[in-house]
Amino acid sequence: MSLLVVGSIALDTVKTPIAEHADLLGGSASYAAVSASFFTAVNLVGVVGDDFPQGHIDYFASRKVDLAGLQKAKGKTFRWSGEYHWDLNTRDTRSVELNVFEHFTPTHAPGYAAPPDVRRAHMAPALQHHVLDQMEKPRFVIADTMDLWINIAKPELLSLLKRVDMLILNDGEARQLTAMTSLIKAGRAIQALGPRYVAVKKGEHGCLLFAPEGFFSCGAYPLEDIHDPTGAGDTFAGGLAGYLASLDLGAVTFDQLRQAVVYGSVMASFNVEAFSLERLRTLTPVQIAERYTTFKLMSQFEALSQAA
Amino acid sequence: MSLLVVGSIALDTVKTPIAEHADLLGGSASYAAVSASFFTAVNLVGVVGDDFPQGHIDYFASRKVDLAGLQKAKGKTFRWSGEYHWDLNTRDTRSVELNVFEHFTPTHAPGYAAPPDVRRAHMAPALQHHVLDQMEKPRFVIADTMDLWINIAKPELLSLLKRVDMLILNDGEARQLTAMTSLIKAGRAIQALGPRYVAVKKGEHGCLLFAPEGFFSCGAYPLEDIHDPTGAGDTFAGGLAGYLASLDLGAVTFDQLRQAVVYGSVMASFNVEAFSLERLRTLTPVQIAERYTTFKLMSQFEALSQAA
Repeated sequence: MSLLVVGSIALDTVKTPIAEHADLLGGSASYAAVSASFFTAVNLVGVVGDDFPQGHIDYFASRKVDLAGLQKAKGKTFRWSGEYHWDLNTRDTRSVELNVFEHFTPTHAPGYAAPPDVRRAHMAPALQHHVLDQMEKPRFVIADTMDLWINIAKPELLSLLKRVDMLILNDGEARQLTAMTSLIKAGRAIQALGPRYVAVKKGEHGCLLFAPEGFFSCGAYPLEDIHDPTGAGDTFAGGLAGYLASLDLGAVTFDQLRQAVVYGSVMASFNVEAFSLERLRTLTPVQIAERYTTFKLMSQFEALSQAA
Repeated sequence: MSLLVVGSIALDTVKTPIAEHADLLGGSASYAAVSASFFTAVNLVGVVGDDFPQGHIDYFASRKVDLAGLQKAKGKTFRWSGEYHWDLNTRDTRSVELNVFEHFTPTHAPGYAAPPDVRRAHMAPALQHHVLDQMEKPRFVIADTMDLWINIAKPELLSLLKRVDMLILNDGEARQLTAMTSLIKAGRAIQALGPRYVAVKKGEHGCLLFAPEGFFSCGAYPLEDIHDPTGAGDTFAGGLAGYLASLDLGAVTFDQLRQAVVYGSVMASFNVEAFSLERLRTLTPVQIAERYTTFKLMSQFEALSQAA
């Protein structure tokens, strides 16, 4: 089963307290597609300008990412620049230039009309509707959102939620969307808006998964040194969606969803070890499997051996 | 094996966005002792004034808490008053009256000279040294700290850390003590100061356990309604220490420590469901066992079923 990833492809300039790098491969769809490519076949739909380095396209191709849906437009590629604060938990956006992304209309390559998994990243809800309108019975649809759309496009976002199987968002967005301080209440409230599954990302504190079948709490990998948090959420979503798409099954089970959340967390933990997608370039399936096992070890404990 | 709990016994006035209650049973040793009493025999060392209600003493006795070390002094009991903000994650201290606690010198009842487990809560490091000086070979010593002692008594705190097996503190205190933003780095740095084991409490995000044998991440129970967070950390520490003391063994193992962290988390999750120690008054061993099992279910996932 293939995964359709639709979203932004960007050139990023990122400053951390340690270093600054310009014109890095970035964008939510780039991170998600490469992360997912470790698990499944990926079709990437996005747009780049005529300044986009051929080397990045070659890298996507080397990851077996299908680029039939990659549009090349006249003009400059979407650019984002951000600066992280000393604790790397917060950041300021220094500049955003939408460039060719401003007039991007996602159009699927003909071969994509079959029902793949879909994952749409950081696009305006109206565009996300447009993507879904073109699909015939996608098997499992994952959306994420960002604070901007909650502020300026809430009605479209709410109608979108009725069309998706899973929403991925961070803790601040969950509170903003529901006006609830308890993440537990917020997660359940978002489920009531449509998605069967809700994943609430908590950065250094891991992730909560809300499902009709139950609740899952996944810790974060204990990294001592984080070099660049950019793309962590997108790498998480890509790993999660990629693992689900790799399962050649009808309905997705809660057990599989929990494994998918762990795979997403594993991929995000690698991604923040270096700038841009650099760490993913050298990542191996054996390293992924080893870190998955570490996640298992660090979160397990014995069942009751005696009555309390 | 019995557990010695030394610390404050207070009458609290607590205001939340929902309600306000005055003259509640409080104090770190009260919470820790009652929480531990669900697992083991407890000796409580503390001081109360002549205004301390007999009903509270009767309640300790009903929990089989040994009160031979409870001093009654002329004057008023230690009083604390606090107000929680709307999200219940932060609070302001409105007033603190040390009263009889100001001149408290912990003295063990003669029967306590045997080597029990020790747990000292929120006392000045000098007093904690004094307690340890009176002990003959305690089996396992747990200390906690608070931001105040990091600010005003850091040298005594640092020398104390060399005498304890485990330090329990919250995320803010861990960062303050080490001047490190990464909780992972902070936890490891605190281990290097003395304690073999360090538990970093993260409130709604659970708890991290650092051990020589490895790392354990424990999620928080998904409570939808929190009524009063007061005493959550002390109830956590009491449950953890009480479970360890209930194990009639020589050395404490990493497996047991992880279970103890889960038991502590279970006890804290109950405690915040009502003001003061009200929820613990009706709590049953069966409810504790059920919630322990829920913790296990919400944090487990399947091992790798295929290569990534």
